[in-house]
Amino acid sequence: MKILIARLTLFAITTLSLSHQAAAEDCIPCHREKTPAAVRQWETSAHARAKIGCEKCHGSNHDKIVKGEAKVDMKVCGPCHQKALREHKASRHGMGLHSGWGCTRNLTNRDPGECRFCHEEGSSAPLSGVQCARFLKQTSEMGEIGCNYCHNVESSCASCHTNHNTSLAIVRDPNSCAKCHMGPDHPQWEMWQTSLHGTLNATAGISTGPTCQTCHMQQGSHNVSVGITMSSGGVPYPSKQAEPARKEMLQVCGQCHAPEFARKELARGDAVRSQSLAIVKEAEKIIWDLYDHGLLDPMPDQRPDHPLSGKKLVTDNQMLYEDTSHIERLLFKMKKYDYARTIKGAYHQNPAYTHWYGNAELKMDLVDIKAEASRLRERGKTPAAGKAGNGSASEEETLRALKSKVERGAMSEEEYAAEKKKVLERLK
Amino acid sequence: MKILIARLTLFAITTLSLSHQAAAEDCIPCHREKTPAAVRQWETSAHARAKIGCEKCHGSNHDKIVKGEAKVDMKVCGPCHQKALREHKASRHGMGLHSGWGCTRNLTNRDPGECRFCHEEGSSAPLSGVQCARFLKQTSEMGEIGCNYCHNVESSCASCHTNHNTSLAIVRDPNSCAKCHMGPDHPQWEMWQTSLHGTLNATAGISTGPTCQTCHMQQGSHNVSVGITMSSGGVPYPSKQAEPARKEMLQVCGQCHAPEFARKELARGDAVRSQSLAIVKEAEKIIWDLYDHGLLDPMPDQRPDHPLSGKKLVTDNQMLYEDTSHIERLLFKMKKYDYARTIKGAYHQNPAYTHWYGNAELKMDLVDIKAEASRLRERGKTPAAGKAGNGSASEEETLRALKSKVERGAMSEEEYAAEKKKVLERLK
Amino acid sequence: MKILIARLTLFAITTLSLSHQAAAEDCIPCHREKTPAAVRQWETSAHARAKIGCEKCHGSNHDKIVKGEAKVDMKVCGPCHQKALREHKASRHGMGLHSGWGCTRNLTNRDPGECRFCHEEGSSAPLSGVQCARFLKQTSEMGEIGCNYCHNVESSCASCHTNHNTSLAIVRDPNSCAKCHMGPDHPQWEMWQTSLHGTLNATAGISTGPTCQTCHMQQGSHNVSVGITMSSGGVPYPSKQAEPARKEMLQVCGQCHAPEFARKELARGDAVRSQSLAIVKEAEKIIWDLYDHGLLDPMPDQRPDHPLSGKKLVTDNQMLYEDTSHIERLLFKMKKYDYARTIKGAYHQNPAYTHWYGNAELKMDLVDIKAEASRLRERGKTPAAGKAGNGSASEEETLRALKSKVERGAMSEEEYAAEKKKVLERLK
Repeated sequence: MKILIARLTLFAITTLSLSHQAAAEDCIPCHREKTPAAVRQWETSAHARAKIGCEKCHGSNHDKIVKGEAKVDMKVCGPCHQKALREHKASRHGMGLHSGWGCTRNLTNRDPGECRFCHEEGSSAPLSGVQCARFLKQTSEMGEIGCNYCHNVESSCASCHTNHNTSLAIVRDPNSCAKCHMGPDHPQWEMWQTSLHGTLNATAGISTGPTCQTCHMQQGSHNVSVGITMSSGGVPYPSKQAEPARKEMLQVCGQCHAPEFARKELARGDAVRSQSLAIVKEAEKIIWDLYDHGLLDPMPDQRPDHPLSGKKLVTDNQMLYEDTSHIERLLFKMKKYDYARTIKGAYHQNPAYTHWYGNAELKMDLVDIKAEASRLRERGKTPAAGKAGNGSASEEETLRALKSKVERGAMSEEEYAAEKKKVLERLK
Repeated sequence: MKILIARLTLFAITTLSLSHQAAAEDCIPCHREKTPAAVRQWETSAHARAKIGCEKCHGSNHDKIVKGEAKVDMKVCGPCHQKALREHKASRHGMGLHSGWGCTRNLTNRDPGECRFCHEEGSSAPLSGVQCARFLKQTSEMGEIGCNYCHNVESSCASCHTNHNTSLAIVRDPNSCAKCHMGPDHPQWEMWQTSLHGTLNATAGISTGPTCQTCHMQQGSHNVSVGITMSSGGVPYPSKQAEPARKEMLQVCGQCHAPEFARKELARGDAVRSQSLAIVKEAEKIIWDLYDHGLLDPMPDQRPDHPLSGKKLVTDNQMLYEDTSHIERLLFKMKKYDYARTIKGAYHQNPAYTHWYGNAELKMDLVDIKAEASRLRERGKTPAAGKAGNGSASEEETLRALKSKVERGAMSEEEYAAEKKKVLERLK
Repeated sequence: MKILIARLTLFAITTLSLSHQAAAEDCIPCHREKTPAAVRQWETSAHARAKIGCEKCHGSNHDKIVKGEAKVDMKVCGPCHQKALREHKASRHGMGLHSGWGCTRNLTNRDPGECRFCHEEGSSAPLSGVQCARFLKQTSEMGEIGCNYCHNVESSCASCHTNHNTSLAIVRDPNSCAKCHMGPDHPQWEMWQTSLHGTLNATAGISTGPTCQTCHMQQGSHNVSVGITMSSGGVPYPSKQAEPARKEMLQVCGQCHAPEFARKELARGDAVRSQSLAIVKEAEKIIWDLYDHGLLDPMPDQRPDHPLSGKKLVTDNQMLYEDTSHIERLLFKMKKYDYARTIKGAYHQNPAYTHWYGNAELKMDLVDIKAEASRLRERGKTPAAGKAGNGSASEEETLRALKSKVERGAMSEEEYAAEKKKVLERLK
């Protein structure tokens, strides 16, 4: 049935595009000089074979094209490639620009007031094309290459398929995924390469060694998020969402492996995730405690406002890596790099990423965070730091910390009252 | 002669296995559904061609197989592949589970009391299958993927050969080694890849660019440790052991290179090792001195016991990366990552690993360790830290440090008495 | 015309070398035993086909060869390969030994007094073959593998071409470049690999995915520096030098891309460079301010002399990574690794290198540098550190810092006098 649909689609494309043949002939002579690579790639493409010429995608208004106003994005590709577009939109790729660390649209408990950072009141149109980049102090050029280049996968099919190639060999190769899925924060390409799957692929080919696409784009599906049981920041999905996803993934594994083997491999990933999350939570607790005691250096009210939360401390996925204290930056590394590498390493069966690039770093981060916390507490005690200096946390300080806890919702008013009473009794 | 033995072995296998043909026929129909990859791989394997069916390796007790009690390890493979097993057992691979950082079996001067951590008294059977993992606070799942996945090379031939493939092309490819020999602690794969050997291999093939196997598995030998002159932690072997090993390695190099050239290349590695070890020793000395003065934060007696050494400071290869002070964690990085990269980089003729990933990091580690030591000493002087606070180490402190040195065996009783006398005289 | 020259050169080589055929015959029988790889590679080389035997390059004095005194460097290759040599000498490769971090020859505003570190007075001959290595405390073996192995590209054609191969396939592969152009300081190979250019190359070959050589060695030119607009340390060239270079690079890009597209891509790299340089400058300013206040730990006069600048603080490209304070070592990482990765990542269109390996690290470096500066300032205030201890910088300290600024040329005598006057008035 699927093959039938594909054939019909191809037929439709071929028929539709016959009338555009002439357009290509108009453009080619000049563009063979001006943009030789584009012409060369189009000429050997399935588009060319199906007589889909330049105008079909770029339109016929040359001025608009030159000004960059005739973008060839998914709205252009979609009408012909409907199934792909539908799957893409259902996937995490389909929300590329908004799935970045530091964006709010996908937060479960989002403060409605945050909307104004991206939208004019009453409008759902974003004020800028790039929402995550605007949270960092950077030029638009850095936003373009550093953020958009990957996150425009949301709307740009060329993000994976490149501009004029239609070769499936290119997009079926893990190298195509590597362009974005690499590096300190999510080295999926690297961990696949040195996993058993990747090493078998390198020596025995795809029939023995599966690729990214084999497992995450079954039968060429463009929904790359099938079977995933956590957010891109590694937060486990609630079981209602996770259980059907796990079933989907087990079906994928089951095409090669015994079901029980697959179940255990994925369950091992879950266990590694729990253990790792506990380490992250321990670190977060240390930092919030320092915050409650006013010991961060600098405290949020002594530095530029967080673009979303102002003078409040932020350690969730809105956390930034600039204008923070040293200990928060250690937490950023821990959460964004080392936690991600540990759990993604485990799910991809890569021992070195799970252990050395992941778990060992996580634990050393915790050592570093504890050491910095100890230094900050020590500093809080010295007279030079302008504190009481009697060598132990005074009752005043304890009360201040309790107040901070209740203000940030980590303690109820009742608990606060009870704790406060204890402290005041100690004072008598 | 070797070829003759190989042929006889093959003959023996072929003969022995004819009777098992039926078994495979029993399993295949069902397993083609349940574990398609396994069947596919076996079908194209030398085992299949030689009519070695499922039962030969897995046995015929289906219940045991399902429960995971019919492991196919070297005891199953060994009887047919005797030469390979013999060589494997003589190599470092043959002690995989016990060669990990944090294990005691291979320490030269091992305290006999340490045995009880792994064995019941009088028994040589390990209490658990994974000895290194138990030294870290972690789930068994982390131990499985993070430790066992590589260290089970000791007993599992599939660790390199994979489960049902018998293709020598797979295990003769450096990618097979990469699965374990990569990452921050021993990036042998990465440093080979970008060495002259590796780059020539990529472009001109194995006849011009040798692989891991070319040098470390000469003529297919399974003794991968031939010619190595140091422990896996980078401790140089005593000359009695190192000299014959060097001769062996020179013979390997001599198959392509002039003997004098090879000798110089390896001697250069030795020189880099000496220089690097001196930097590590300098760092260790700083940390022990802080320990003697009670200045580590936290001191070993203020944190969870080391699983082998209790409240003692550990900086040898039993050193762990959790529950330590910040400065010890810097030393861990220095020893386990940067020292290893410097020396392995030099022996593999990789300039970037020797210099930038190795030596530069080693030296910056030393800067960091000295800086942290300075901070800790400063802290030892401040009244807030509960110390004397007169701005210089008091005689009391000096005596305490001397006592610590004699207790840990770094100073003889005589030396201690002499030093103590000097301090007491100063006091008068 | 170019082809004609090449043919004439080949003809000249062939004719010249016929007389040397005998020499090879003399050497081969023995060297097939002693250096089999060399013989094997030569036998399949263009040199062998053109009857260029051993003697032509190595000479006929066997004693000299054995002693390593008959080096085959560019002086030997040059007479036959004149065009290549000319281009090489005009390029940054042609000054390989002197282009290293820590060398002075290429500094624009070089203190003439620095010459004596490398030359006897009145002589332009270097005192040692390796000038950068001598600035670090290291063995000659480390200098050999860690510095020379790459920087001898200046004089050794074999650095890229290897010793006896003449296969152009080897040197036309990016792997050949990877041997040196990789690692934390300049991962050009890695960033090309995972750029669109590199991923297309991996799947669709060189006609679709350009290599290092496609852009940096157009038509086989050995001038690898064509079109570069900054020093190897990332310092932008003055526009007089940068503008013609940019034009050259645009011509290269224009062979595939629309001119306007190429211009924008490169201009984006420039913008990323400016933004990144500003972050580096902010960090440098913090460190110099600490220096002015005598707060570095240790201060330059409390540690071994800098080999060029003695007791002065060095943060330019003469900066070393040993015997410095922790905060300077953070700056070293920032400048040499993270700044380089950000800007080279942008020019090579690699999002992960520009953002995560680059920009994010740069900003976290700044967080770390500010945190360490805060610690050092705090320390400067505590009585334990032997300072005034009144909780704020005293007028005496301010005067000392002003004096330091004027001494290092960061403030004119007039500005100093004015500032001093203000401070003295506050004292009254």
